[in-house]
Amino acid sequence: MDNTKILPVSNILKDTPPYRHGGDIYNNDVKYDFSVNTNPLGLPPIVKRKLIENTDVFARYPDIHCCQLCEAVSVNENIPVCNLLFGNGASEILKLIVDVVKPRKALVTAPSFLGYSHVLNGTGAGIEYYYLEEEKNFVLDTDIIGKIPAGCDMVFLCSPCNPTGRVISKNVLLSVLLYCEENHIYLVVDECFLGFVPDYESLSMKNRLDSNYLIIVNAFTKLYAMAGLRLGWCACGNRELLTEMRRMQPEWSVSVPAQLAGIYALKDKEYIARTREVVQQERVKMAGFFEDMGIKVFPSDANFLLVKSKINLYEKLLARHVLIRWCSNFTGLSDEFYRIAIRSAGENKIFIKILTEVL
Amino acid sequence: MDNTKILPVSNILKDTPPYRHGGDIYNNDVKYDFSVNTNPLGLPPIVKRKLIENTDVFARYPDIHCCQLCEAVSVNENIPVCNLLFGNGASEILKLIVDVVKPRKALVTAPSFLGYSHVLNGTGAGIEYYYLEEEKNFVLDTDIIGKIPAGCDMVFLCSPCNPTGRVISKNVLLSVLLYCEENHIYLVVDECFLGFVPDYESLSMKNRLDSNYLIIVNAFTKLYAMAGLRLGWCACGNRELLTEMRRMQPEWSVSVPAQLAGIYALKDKEYIARTREVVQQERVKMAGFFEDMGIKVFPSDANFLLVKSKINLYEKLLARHVLIRWCSNFTGLSDEFYRIAIRSAGENKIFIKILTEVL
Repeated sequence: MDNTKILPVSNILKDTPPYRHGGDIYNNDVKYDFSVNTNPLGLPPIVKRKLIENTDVFARYPDIHCCQLCEAVSVNENIPVCNLLFGNGASEILKLIVDVVKPRKALVTAPSFLGYSHVLNGTGAGIEYYYLEEEKNFVLDTDIIGKIPAGCDMVFLCSPCNPTGRVISKNVLLSVLLYCEENHIYLVVDECFLGFVPDYESLSMKNRLDSNYLIIVNAFTKLYAMAGLRLGWCACGNRELLTEMRRMQPEWSVSVPAQLAGIYALKDKEYIARTREVVQQERVKMAGFFEDMGIKVFPSDANFLLVKSKINLYEKLLARHVLIRWCSNFTGLSDEFYRIAIRSAGENKIFIKILTEVL
Repeated sequence: MDNTKILPVSNILKDTPPYRHGGDIYNNDVKYDFSVNTNPLGLPPIVKRKLIENTDVFARYPDIHCCQLCEAVSVNENIPVCNLLFGNGASEILKLIVDVVKPRKALVTAPSFLGYSHVLNGTGAGIEYYYLEEEKNFVLDTDIIGKIPAGCDMVFLCSPCNPTGRVISKNVLLSVLLYCEENHIYLVVDECFLGFVPDYESLSMKNRLDSNYLIIVNAFTKLYAMAGLRLGWCACGNRELLTEMRRMQPEWSVSVPAQLAGIYALKDKEYIARTREVVQQERVKMAGFFEDMGIKVFPSDANFLLVKSKINLYEKLLARHVLIRWCSNFTGLSDEFYRIAIRSAGENKIFIKILTEVL
């Protein structure tokens, strides 16, 4: 091998399957990123301040058990510490779940977050899709129960669903869980966007941690705009499963900045209230704009909107350095679908101006 | 379940096997940490500065392919980018290696880093130990080749070895690799501490990346005192293996602060030279002190010393808030062994003073 011949980094990508995702500002010339659905308020100010003050402790090993963070989340969510596990983003948590459960056949709704298929493909599990219907505005109802295939041992649900933005009603979730318990199927409920919804406490499945078959996935990524810091967690009543996940997890998976950021994010008690207010107000405004422009917009409970257009909004906006999430690589969506984040009032105004200009 | 009953965090630990490791300042009252063998110079100043300046970008998703970091390491190490993979610390890299290779039987030297057994136990691989001899000052020689057991498909070597501090001669490594290639055994060479050794370039196995059976593990953790930020990498000539590892890796595994820190750490060209100088000077001083005190000290090439004493140095020092690494949970070492980090001249002086007082 000639070590002096350094190949350009693009050669790495030849080995890697293309993986389009939100927030890819590294391969695009982007001024306004509406592709990534994180909190429009940005990192809580206290988190920024504490990270700046504490760079000295970044040299230390993280607390391998995330004790202080675990206590903080436990109190905040009213979930016993023994039911919590932290990881390097929800992505690592999802991987640990499939590594431990080793599902043979999993049911995933279409469309939904690509991360479920990513981890399932990694373990060689079979994937079946339950297609959400555009005519029903992608709402998930109890019809799914009759469609859980024979031999299925894991179901992934996402509430609110990414990229549709629709929450799943608590009754539907409880009915699915009941069916899963009777049939020894693990139910993974991804609540990563549920914190944006004012009814979080009543919609969350966290009061059903008595079940051995329920695993709730959550993260600081979206709700606290901490995508770059990587902090995910899960809540699970099945302690054996959690113990196995801990055993499979690389040591010191959660970095010092991530633990620190998580602990301090929860101290800013106003932040979530302001977030919900901004998201609610701005979503109404943005949805109204799309309607006025004659662009089909689907009802959303989350901090993003799914829209449908025969015009290639992605390319038209990217030409003006605005990135949105083109949804053509979501199973269950055609190339006419786009996911657009709700950002701050100022950014949304710019978005509206630019989109009006390019249409 | 009564959700109002929040269990103390210590209950988590009941589910978790005890895992004693260096740097556990969270469960001990520590003023001086000599248990963790990271760079005594601390984080490179440019890294601290850049992290402080860039907290805004922590809200963004990391570059999923670590392109800029990859280019920087490629140039620094003279390794083609297509042979590099980055992870959330060497711990994640080690896990990905065993997840992909799925060894049935692995050979690990005793003593050596506990992380190898951790990931091997996670996949249920059989572990056999090759015991390094105290009489030979724990030096690894070609005798190991005759002891690679039948059915072994993976060998873990560490140079310099943690916790003995001994490098493995290049001839021994090349002989082991030759045997491994002939017998289709993957050879993992952990070079996490090799950057502390002035002969790094000639001792590293990176000029043998033409081999399909060699995987070199490295990290910024120790050499750049970035334990809290989590940044590891591996170099491997077997592109299929690397592609599989990428496929198994959770998305966005390497955080924004870790990528940023890695990129800027490599820009401080003086740092490694100063590190090697300090470590060399201080190691001679510390080794001389132990000899003077009648404490057996083993020759070391690294930034730490293995010492042996019938007196419980761990407890005596901890009573004075000095933490050292008690090695009793290393396979191949009795409870008379301790690993002591080489720190700065000032800290080492304090260590010497305190140890003199307690003995």
